[in-house]
Amino acid sequence: MYRTHTCGELRISDVNKTVTLSGWVDASRAFGPMTFVDLRDRYGITQVVFENNEDLNKQAMALGREFVVKVEGTVRERMAKNPNRATGDIEIVATELTVLNVSKTPPFTIKDETDGGDDIRMKYRYLDLRRGAVQKNLFFRSQVAIETRKYLAGQNFIEVETPNLIKSTPEGARDFVVPSRMNAGQFYALPQSPQTFKQLLMVSGFDKYFQIVKCFRDEDLRADRQPEFTQIDCEMSFVTQEDILNTFEGLTKHLFKTCLNIDLPDFPRMTYDEAMSLYGSDKPDVRFGMPFVELTDVAKGKGFPVFDGAELVVAINTERVASQYSNKTINELTEWVKRPQIGAKGLAYVKFEEDGSIKSPLSKFFTEEDFKTWADKCGAKKGDIIFILSGEAEKTRKQLSELRLELGNRLGLRNPSVFKPLWVVDFPLLEWDDDTQRFYAMHHPFTSPKRDQIASMLNGDHETMKNLRADAYDLVLNGVEIGGGSIRIYDRDLQSKNFKLLGMAEEEAESKFGFLLGAFEFGAPPHGGIAFGFDRLCAVMSGSNSIRDFIAFPKNNQGRDVMIDAPSFIEDSQLAELNIDVTVEKV
Amino acid sequence: MYRTHTCGELRISDVNKTVTLSGWVDASRAFGPMTFVDLRDRYGITQVVFENNEDLNKQAMALGREFVVKVEGTVRERMAKNPNRATGDIEIVATELTVLNVSKTPPFTIKDETDGGDDIRMKYRYLDLRRGAVQKNLFFRSQVAIETRKYLAGQNFIEVETPNLIKSTPEGARDFVVPSRMNAGQFYALPQSPQTFKQLLMVSGFDKYFQIVKCFRDEDLRADRQPEFTQIDCEMSFVTQEDILNTFEGLTKHLFKTCLNIDLPDFPRMTYDEAMSLYGSDKPDVRFGMPFVELTDVAKGKGFPVFDGAELVVAINTERVASQYSNKTINELTEWVKRPQIGAKGLAYVKFEEDGSIKSPLSKFFTEEDFKTWADKCGAKKGDIIFILSGEAEKTRKQLSELRLELGNRLGLRNPSVFKPLWVVDFPLLEWDDDTQRFYAMHHPFTSPKRDQIASMLNGDHETMKNLRADAYDLVLNGVEIGGGSIRIYDRDLQSKNFKLLGMAEEEAESKFGFLLGAFEFGAPPHGGIAFGFDRLCAVMSGSNSIRDFIAFPKNNQGRDVMIDAPSFIEDSQLAELNIDVTVEKV
Repeated sequence: MYRTHTCGELRISDVNKTVTLSGWVDASRAFGPMTFVDLRDRYGITQVVFENNEDLNKQAMALGREFVVKVEGTVRERMAKNPNRATGDIEIVATELTVLNVSKTPPFTIKDETDGGDDIRMKYRYLDLRRGAVQKNLFFRSQVAIETRKYLAGQNFIEVETPNLIKSTPEGARDFVVPSRMNAGQFYALPQSPQTFKQLLMVSGFDKYFQIVKCFRDEDLRADRQPEFTQIDCEMSFVTQEDILNTFEGLTKHLFKTCLNIDLPDFPRMTYDEAMSLYGSDKPDVRFGMPFVELTDVAKGKGFPVFDGAELVVAINTERVASQYSNKTINELTEWVKRPQIGAKGLAYVKFEEDGSIKSPLSKFFTEEDFKTWADKCGAKKGDIIFILSGEAEKTRKQLSELRLELGNRLGLRNPSVFKPLWVVDFPLLEWDDDTQRFYAMHHPFTSPKRDQIASMLNGDHETMKNLRADAYDLVLNGVEIGGGSIRIYDRDLQSKNFKLLGMAEEEAESKFGFLLGAFEFGAPPHGGIAFGFDRLCAVMSGSNSIRDFIAFPKNNQGRDVMIDAPSFIEDSQLAELNIDVTVEKV
Repeated sequence: MYRTHTCGELRISDVNKTVTLSGWVDASRAFGPMTFVDLRDRYGITQVVFENNEDLNKQAMALGREFVVKVEGTVRERMAKNPNRATGDIEIVATELTVLNVSKTPPFTIKDETDGGDDIRMKYRYLDLRRGAVQKNLFFRSQVAIETRKYLAGQNFIEVETPNLIKSTPEGARDFVVPSRMNAGQFYALPQSPQTFKQLLMVSGFDKYFQIVKCFRDEDLRADRQPEFTQIDCEMSFVTQEDILNTFEGLTKHLFKTCLNIDLPDFPRMTYDEAMSLYGSDKPDVRFGMPFVELTDVAKGKGFPVFDGAELVVAINTERVASQYSNKTINELTEWVKRPQIGAKGLAYVKFEEDGSIKSPLSKFFTEEDFKTWADKCGAKKGDIIFILSGEAEKTRKQLSELRLELGNRLGLRNPSVFKPLWVVDFPLLEWDDDTQRFYAMHHPFTSPKRDQIASMLNGDHETMKNLRADAYDLVLNGVEIGGGSIRIYDRDLQSKNFKLLGMAEEEAESKFGFLLGAFEFGAPPHGGIAFGFDRLCAVMSGSNSIRDFIAFPKNNQGRDVMIDAPSFIEDSQLAELNIDVTVEKV
């Protein structure tokens, strides 16, 4: 037997009990003839004292950090209690010590605040995961999963596992593929999402489906992307958009309440068009204001060539920063928006000083009257600064959105422990791409146009298509897209039309999605769904920017697991069995 | 709004309510001027009546099977109640009917008893899944998953997701591999199990881990195998075999109690050696007796050449069949054991007739005294038959094991609603293979020999290795292996020695499992675990032989999903991006 209790369990009421504990040596210190060892496990830390036994004491002094030991002893009340520790009232007076395993000196400190850089911690992820701060994240994730299942099962959702070895139908993102040995020359694909399967489950009559499920996308990885990630994937039948928003608003509130003890208010809703014109983003961070104000009509035609040539002149008002933002700060901001990642040509501003004076580099083109008009439009008062960008409308909005977030960061308006959820609704159905001269699905090819637009979608012209709106929605939390979904097409003809609009020939649509088109002919119910990014949800709920902190064994930006050293070269015999060759040299 | 209630919800207390229901037309029949429609959804069936409205009635008469409709109406008490239906006391008098979707005639009947063969039902799996009998299986599976999580979370297990894109380390089964685009020429593998990751989680101190997780094996598929399958995967630290058996016996009892309302008694335990000698199988079906009785010493040397040349002569007694089993039946059994799948040369028997006479084809070699000796050994009485096989010991035991199961089937001793669990323990650590002249791990390369045999494993000779026993165990239920596990090695040297015994060169061990060997140097705790085959558990609990019935979208024996038609050929551009070529022609 390795233990009678865990290292987080013993209390003052256990005094005089004979106990056995096992765990890791978190710290040890000699104190005259006594040695104190902090014994750690997942549940806590218990102090063990070695005294009055020279032999045992000697053994205890030889223990290194992270040694795994078993200790027998008696529980005793501590003289100097430690109120910061659940077991801080007691200690174990050891009568026996067994070293279960030794440890080399770890390559970094196993503490919440560690000296280990990212690379070394990833290589030794099993040691990184020993740190309380990292364990906490995985326990949190596990709790969010438990509460998700509890809520959805309580709402009659059934969890159904969909297959991982499916068919490659790349549309948008690239598929990971898996060569089939038994079907020479053919490949499975790993699912980018269980989309078609969950729709088939609706055709089967499962009514309410969910799954916490791994998905895969072979994309070039940015900081916050992983090739495999986890979704809370859901689908419901006989529902409208309203039913889905209510259900998943309920889920989100439940998770915040049970996992963080936070009561979220009802979620506001905003159309995609509003979000774009107010914040230049379909996932606005509404923890703070600074909405966009269009100045195009009042700023053009006054002789300032930059504005005169612009499609859009748009401003945000930044309150109470006039005295705080020196020219130096404003120059910094200007350089910031001119970086290639943002791409603005420059940054105009009007500073409304506390003393009533107005300062702006634009003052040789505009009168004080002009500036006051702008101030009125922007709601700017003494002490505020309005920042202005101009140019091609879509680009300029994106740039100003970035500036708005940067100002929010600088002004401490994006507090990670404040949570402002938002439904963004009424997304466009299709996006036109000038380069490839075709439409792309804004959400995915299975999304339905709004009910009253179905007729115009079946018969409309190019302009009509551009303006179609979908029953498609995103849940945005603190500027992060947590999830998205839509009401789906459930009619074969409409689905075929959509595939056609997306540039898919009839045979291609049939070969890729024939099973779904076929299913729509046998009594498909109206249905819709949503998927939450589970890794991201956990991160945002914890006020973290990094989904990696919530994944036990994440991959790096090259898609590598540096701990196990994968991917790797495989045996020629494996390749031969799979009927494939590698077209590059092994390096 | 599509519905105010589901089709399984309305009761007599709802009479006079105005309601809206949506669902599928399960059946409809005209009855004079009235039309009755059975409206079906996942929750039940509700009868809808169209009467006194010629227009509506005409619409209702036009409804086909599996049409999806929305009905508004009033709840009314039924004249002729249907006690077999939860909603059988009421019906809906329709005031409005909307056809939400039409349906072609399904290719097979959507009823529990269907006329559809396996192939057509798999092609239209989304219709097969509409059948109540099939839905029931998936609801059962979902319930077993919920209760598994409830039990394990209640025992402080944490669910951690391990990665699906890992490293190929084929040992035993073949890996499915995934070419990496970003790491040209390299491959990920899909996990055959999360074995090494769960061990690392123990090194990290997670103490108790579980996961309901997809695993993948690229094996030639037998009837009851799938290339992707689901495990309840668990690992615990600071435990002995006893702790693990108790925990998972507790889980199994909990599942039977909560999902089937069956109280299982404590599980008996049997060593591997006992199981092999008593039943010729490491997964004996103990719902019935018929243990093996060795007759070698009393049957050899009497002049019967078949026995005289045999390493083993072994019998089972079959009670009360002497009058029932004619020569014809016994000939059938003889042909059955001579089939190549079984491979016996013949089947000897001694029939102890009710009248005290003894009949046997061996009577010219053996005396009645001999037969009585055998009867004593076998516990055979008047009316019994003993069946005897002989030959090479291991093969003969396997053959007799098959015969025992076949007799059990014929005699109705394998009742699928009777459950007899059994722990088989003390498996050998290694198996010697004469063909390849090397040892194979009986369980897997991470299994520990029994504590008191570690020294002899580190230093012993070949014979010692053959006889090593491991802390490895299987949970067997009604002759089916539900799960298995072991106490693991947690010492680097012992693990290296095991890899070496398994024929792995040091560099190979380092390149495949260096991360695990490394982890063992930083304070790995003693640990062990188990994994249950989740699909199989659900099947056995339901008294079914087929795991396919419990998988929403299973693959056929060629590893194909015939519904979506996967695997399939992929684009040349995809191959090029992945730096691979296919070495066979597209057919």
